[in-house]
Amino acid sequence: MDIIKVSSKSTPQKVAGAISNLFRESTDKVEMQAIGAGALNQAIKAIAIARGFVAPTGKNLVCIPAFSDIEIDGEERTAIKLIVEAL
Amino acid sequence: MDIIKVSSKSTPQKVAGAISNLFRESTDKVEMQAIGAGALNQAIKAIAIARGFVAPTGKNLVCIPAFSDIEIDGEERTAIKLIVEAL
Repeated sequence: MDIIKVSSKSTPQKVAGAISNLFRESTDKVEMQAIGAGALNQAIKAIAIARGFVAPTGKNLVCIPAFSDIEIDGEERTAIKLIVEAL
Repeated sequence: MDIIKVSSKSTPQKVAGAISNLFRESTDKVEMQAIGAGALNQAIKAIAIARGFVAPTGKNLVCIPAFSDIEIDGEERTAIKLIVEAL
């Protein structure tokens, strides 16, 4: 499964483009990772935009939020993992 | 459809309780509204927690993010609407 890491500086439009490209290439599941409220905000906006990109191909994108423990510079952080699926 | 308004001060655990109560009462769609990154962060965490509350009843909660224009004190703001559905 592909993982897209989103930061607070990511542009929702560009992330949406990356998501919809993956779904166009027959992927049916994309994982996104965001650490912090700013990053999560951009990730969720990207999914809302990607829904519009992908809808004409008959795919309805939904997202499943989950917690994910990751290690950054030896420190434990909690990231939010967003699993985007096409129904 | 029920609308749950989430702020940056909302407790994800409590919001998750409210969501799962609605799903227990035979609802199959809940709408959440968040304005700003902090509020959205709490809303997404609440959905992740609610998934765990609702899973034992055989329901798999997914969320559909969308933009929503709302008016606050005569000013136009963009809120994020999260439609939570049970599969």
